[in-house]
Amino acid sequence: MRALVWDGRELRFISDVPTPSVVAGTALVRVGFAGICSTDLQILQGYMGFRGIPGHEFVGRVVDGPEGWAGRRVVAEINFACGRCETCAAGRRRHCPARTVLGIQDADGAFADFVRIPIENLHVVPDEVPDRTAVFVEPLAAAFEAEAQTRGLAGGHATVLGAGKLGLLIAQVLAARGDRVSVVCRSSGARRRVEELGLAATDAKSATRGRDLVVEATGSIEGLAIAMDLVRPLGTIVAKSTVAAHHTLDLAPIVIHEISLIGSRCGPFEPALEALRTNAVSVAPLLEGIYPIERGAEAFEAAARPGALKFLLGT
Amino acid sequence: MRALVWDGRELRFISDVPTPSVVAGTALVRVGFAGICSTDLQILQGYMGFRGIPGHEFVGRVVDGPEGWAGRRVVAEINFACGRCETCAAGRRRHCPARTVLGIQDADGAFADFVRIPIENLHVVPDEVPDRTAVFVEPLAAAFEAEAQTRGLAGGHATVLGAGKLGLLIAQVLAARGDRVSVVCRSSGARRRVEELGLAATDAKSATRGRDLVVEATGSIEGLAIAMDLVRPLGTIVAKSTVAAHHTLDLAPIVIHEISLIGSRCGPFEPALEALRTNAVSVAPLLEGIYPIERGAEAFEAAARPGALKFLLGT
Repeated sequence: MRALVWDGRELRFISDVPTPSVVAGTALVRVGFAGICSTDLQILQGYMGFRGIPGHEFVGRVVDGPEGWAGRRVVAEINFACGRCETCAAGRRRHCPARTVLGIQDADGAFADFVRIPIENLHVVPDEVPDRTAVFVEPLAAAFEAEAQTRGLAGGHATVLGAGKLGLLIAQVLAARGDRVSVVCRSSGARRRVEELGLAATDAKSATRGRDLVVEATGSIEGLAIAMDLVRPLGTIVAKSTVAAHHTLDLAPIVIHEISLIGSRCGPFEPALEALRTNAVSVAPLLEGIYPIERGAEAFEAAARPGALKFLLGT
Repeated sequence: MRALVWDGRELRFISDVPTPSVVAGTALVRVGFAGICSTDLQILQGYMGFRGIPGHEFVGRVVDGPEGWAGRRVVAEINFACGRCETCAAGRRRHCPARTVLGIQDADGAFADFVRIPIENLHVVPDEVPDRTAVFVEPLAAAFEAEAQTRGLAGGHATVLGAGKLGLLIAQVLAARGDRVSVVCRSSGARRRVEELGLAATDAKSATRGRDLVVEATGSIEGLAIAMDLVRPLGTIVAKSTVAAHHTLDLAPIVIHEISLIGSRCGPFEPALEALRTNAVSVAPLLEGIYPIERGAEAFEAAARPGALKFLLGT
């Protein structure tokens, strides 16, 4: 099959990678679209030391697997849990210490013709949701995680730092639950996108302080210091960026102002699929381009430009 | 009156500081005992740029003030709120941005014969609680804050980092609500103290990982990294130390493991007074020495020794 392979130095298109074999409890999925995420760009900077086929946001169709699955259009949760450890038993499968992670940690990903997925990770895509929309379910689930972690703050004043792909999804999810949301933008282009989504745009300097909730989704090291500046005492910061670098941070304000800093990663697929089905969240404005997989390296370059939105690989 | 005065360079005993005048809404309190806290030691390192009379843990007796208050034995919450701002209106008076803080920020403290306190900050001490016990109510309230912030984790596995004064109070408060608590100690002396309080002692190397809750009360920069190592995915770290230094920290684990890092400072006096009244928490083992105020500098030196417990100034 065709695939993009990261060998630690170079992202290469290879036309004859062996197609994964289906083992018990898994399905083989033909990939329709796969999205390039900031984490993929981080992987090319060394994040997680990953080697192999990246890609963890995708929609596809099952071509081989247990009875009843063939032909179904699916998306997949990316953490493949062992199902046997204490963490799994405690219902925290996404954090299984023995897990592999699709396209991120010891599991080949979706920048390929086919990908192998444990059945328990699959979700069937409702007919109303087209492929180009369904491919956003994984980052939208991550946005819903921020929502689930801050439910006690619903209806309050929230600021989202970063008008990138994830930031725009989070802002929409928070607005949908009734938060009064503003999005901190760096460029006039970003500001326009935010306003076209019906959200309030601002910038770091003129952003209102004293917010109940600040979501850090800039992907940059500076974001957290800005978040600490904008959040109110006893407020909450949700940290979304996994930056491959050490922060130097004056943490005294966190203690003095009794701020909660909550790390946030993957999230629940059910509300994300439902939000896509009902058009509660718009993803079309986030889509910037689609490349054939052969031109994957080019797509990665485009996705790495500052301010870039979502690029998909079509297989 | 007599007082200890910090001028930014030296902590001096002065025998003729003017006694504070009583203004509307305040009471003049004759200080019985005042405790030396780690924050006081930090102030002598430059924390908050404080100048004046330090001291924020005390018990005393009202000698002048509104009707009904004279003669009452009292302790006091240390944040003096404006009562008029948005933060106060929202019920977050301890975080009023215009506040002064007893002996820490723009308000003379309790290392003196007399201290002036807003009436609304006073709490009457129950008769059953002797002065040497009541003087612990402020740090014990800070311990109860950690409890209040993590109520959803009651009954779980908790580790307290630091067997100092605050650590031992927090460990007792968590144990009293049913947490299975262990305390990370550095010395055999600390280990003995922990075990005498009926708690489990351990050290950073052999401490069990995967804890639901880790409370960082070491007062040192290293504590937070150890906390991140010991807490489970989706677990909570409560940060108690206000260290006058910048941390360099790899924050990626917070995001990847979706850890909640909660800053924690002052807390509610009511449960602290009740715990002292009912002997639910032991403070006698935490008391190391009592000095007369004239020997305040000496008391500070003793309190600054590694592993020192609580030193009181008696006036």
